Amino acid sequence: MSATIPQEFRDLLTKKAFAHLATIMPDGSPQVTPVWIDFDGGHVRVNSAKGRIKDKNMRRNGRVALAIQDPDNPYRYLAVRGRVEEITEAGADAHIDSLAKKYLGQDRYPHRQPAEVRVIYRIRPERVSTMG
Amino acid sequence: MSATIPQEFRDLLTKKAFAHLATIMPDGSPQVTPVWIDFDGGHVRVNSAKGRIKDKNMRRNGRVALAIQDPDNPYRYLAVRGRVEEITEAGADAHIDSLAKKYLGQDRYPHRQPAEVRVIYRIRPERVSTMG
Repeated sequence: MSATIPQEFRDLLTKKAFAHLATIMPDGSPQVTPVWIDFDGGHVRVNSAKGRIKDKNMRRNGRVALAIQDPDNPYRYLAVRGRVEEITEAGADAHIDSLAKKYLGQDRYPHRQPAEVRVIYRIRPERVSTMG
Repeated sequence: MSATIPQEFRDLLTKKAFAHLATIMPDGSPQVTPVWIDFDGGHVRVNSAKGRIKDKNMRRNGRVALAIQDPDNPYRYLAVRGRVEEITEAGADAHIDSLAKKYLGQDRYPHRQPAEVRVIYRIRPERVSTMG
């Protein structure tokens, strides 16, 4: 099962809009926080670090949801339910730098920790709904 | 189990900041969308309408999560995990009007549908984390 993000909402994937990512805790309850995202043409990509709550949740349970609100109009948004299809460290340092460029206008991610292992999560949209 | 929202983040509950509310679908996967909220001193209150996905999800499974990003600084936010403690139609029409006042500056909620039954969900915070 795979869903397409409508063309007229793709700007939300490229503009400086945060996503709110919901993952599932070990007890089945949800967790949600704002994250940086980008889009590789088919998947929404999130970048986190090994060992964090989101990392553990997505490794245990690949079912996630995202909502992306238009920073220029909060009543326009994209809501995606989907599945983490790939989790990889390959390219994750370059990816967090490219997200820092998108969101902060900086060439390198400025908050890197020495012991931190960055990870990319590729999320395949399964259900997409739009508002606005 | 109950957690307190730190005083220095309570402004996020009163200012015109959206919450992203995550609920659990019948299959255990998460769903997340932006919502209006307020705070009654102990509970975060959400207002939806009978029969919507969020309404059905919260009636089936009271475990929810919320994140509230500061519209003036997206790197400052409040993340709450908690439980729906009460679901009621009592006062729900007045409540959606007061949320319309908060978010739209209008005395009455302008999007009311004739057949719609408004509902208040009172969410007790069980875990609170803050950033920024």
